[in-house]
Amino acid sequence: MSTLCVPSQVPPVSDDCEQLHKAFKGWGTNEGLIISILGHRNAAQRKVIQKTYAETYGEDLLKVLDKELSSDFERIVKLWALDPPVRDAQLANEATKRWTKSNQVLVEIACTRSSQDLLLAKQAYHALYKKSLEEDVAYHTTGDFRKLLVPLVSTYRYEGDEVNMTIAKSEAKILHQKIGEKAYTDDDLIRILATRSKTQINATLNHYKNEFGKDINKDLKADPKDEFLALLRSTIKCLNFPEKYFEKSLRLAINKTGTDEGALTRVVATRAEVDMKTIKECFEKRNTVPLDKAIVKDTTGDYEKMLLALIGHGDA
Amino acid sequence: MSTLCVPSQVPPVSDDCEQLHKAFKGWGTNEGLIISILGHRNAAQRKVIQKTYAETYGEDLLKVLDKELSSDFERIVKLWALDPPVRDAQLANEATKRWTKSNQVLVEIACTRSSQDLLLAKQAYHALYKKSLEEDVAYHTTGDFRKLLVPLVSTYRYEGDEVNMTIAKSEAKILHQKIGEKAYTDDDLIRILATRSKTQINATLNHYKNEFGKDINKDLKADPKDEFLALLRSTIKCLNFPEKYFEKSLRLAINKTGTDEGALTRVVATRAEVDMKTIKECFEKRNTVPLDKAIVKDTTGDYEKMLLALIGHGDA
Repeated sequence: MSTLCVPSQVPPVSDDCEQLHKAFKGWGTNEGLIISILGHRNAAQRKVIQKTYAETYGEDLLKVLDKELSSDFERIVKLWALDPPVRDAQLANEATKRWTKSNQVLVEIACTRSSQDLLLAKQAYHALYKKSLEEDVAYHTTGDFRKLLVPLVSTYRYEGDEVNMTIAKSEAKILHQKIGEKAYTDDDLIRILATRSKTQINATLNHYKNEFGKDINKDLKADPKDEFLALLRSTIKCLNFPEKYFEKSLRLAINKTGTDEGALTRVVATRAEVDMKTIKECFEKRNTVPLDKAIVKDTTGDYEKMLLALIGHGDA
Repeated sequence: MSTLCVPSQVPPVSDDCEQLHKAFKGWGTNEGLIISILGHRNAAQRKVIQKTYAETYGEDLLKVLDKELSSDFERIVKLWALDPPVRDAQLANEATKRWTKSNQVLVEIACTRSSQDLLLAKQAYHALYKKSLEEDVAYHTTGDFRKLLVPLVSTYRYEGDEVNMTIAKSEAKILHQKIGEKAYTDDDLIRILATRSKTQINATLNHYKNEFGKDINKDLKADPKDEFLALLRSTIKCLNFPEKYFEKSLRLAINKTGTDEGALTRVVATRAEVDMKTIKECFEKRNTVPLDKAIVKDTTGDYEKMLLALIGHGDA
């Protein structure tokens, strides 16, 4: 469920564009005005605003934002303003270029998006970068990480509700056996995670827990410092409990000394319109403090205001 | 270029349906009438016929064909009648179920279709089988074959004309080195074939030939009996010279003792509307006999007539 608050009476798009144009004009920028408009329009509305702005003022709104805003506020407004598939393509591209073993953005995009949304992101990737997401991931990663990441970003999963219990049982067994042997990069283990539908994987992991008495992710904690194991755990969380994965990302971002604005911005900008309501509930339950309070404590200024607008602060 | 001959004046779809209905009625089936209609309608027209037939007679045309026709003629009419993405999904599904190391159908579908057509086939696969092509391929194949086939069916390749010559050079070198070491299942070798755009692969293979003096497929013939090498060669042919790949499939199907009707039917039914004109030219050049003559020599009856109709016999 979305936390975005769109007013019941949305002004005509020409008014929105005029106001935005005003916000950029003269000395200084009116950040409050920008938040009051862009922070309260959904993806379809933002797309029309961008189109109309270009037609009316002959300028690309994203380029204007780039010129007029700065630092964390700039980043969140720009990410938010983007069409979601283009945003995912950009995030994935950054992740391939600055790839490190601890970078979980590719897993996040590959495993928390629906098949259709992942496909749209891949199409946006073609259009933006004149190459495929698959080839960039394959090119910029190596070894075990590549062995997991390439199939995850390549797959086009089935999304129906059908479950094959025979397969769930046999594949739970395979997973348990391979993890027992510490064969974490086993072909079958990766095949199961990369190709089965999310519903099927859920059934397999339920059976795993019933049959072997432990969550699979507990068994994947043999070495807490192993970055490949961390990525495997994230894969499973993203596939099975995306809201828990995002809650943890927010928790780590906020609790980090100095705050990880990159992660905070990314999670809020990409989830506000999707499942931020559930993520907020998870967050409060896990941290005993509501997400908005944690954000107020950790951030300031226009950046803070934009984050709060997107997570629906004051409109719960 | 297509070899399908659609009359300049196509009768109304209701007439087509009425004629087909007549062809099935009473004692015996009027195969000639079926050929004269279905053998001369394009994919969009066949789709409308199927829809109208169901609405008019309350019967699924494909089920009627199944009931009324038999053997090779049945197979080609049914395959041909299908919407191309559904046809590809069915062919791929059969290939996973009856998978053997010499079965090249999966490579053929993964590598000769455009990204969009492969995607449509994967969507049809979801709808028909309530699972993904990726998971079936991964489940039914093993070892080296799986390592190549899963990425090939999963990928969503970029289709633009851009070529990066630096990459072409460095990857030609990688390919040459790995093949020299007989490391045919090397991660990089598979990555290049499975993720790069066809245009980029073409540039890489041209550079390979210029730099190392031989076609890559010559270097992949170290052991002519090795089925994995045969699959690698087919992959490269399908990506780079699909018409040559199909010419060879037809040649082997026709020259085989007893004819391989399965392959002959598949190639004609899937390529008639795509590039059969080029395939026919290749065939004649390579075999000194035109394809229609070879077909007449090797097949009989309604099956022969349907094949000839689809390859545009007499309308060259």
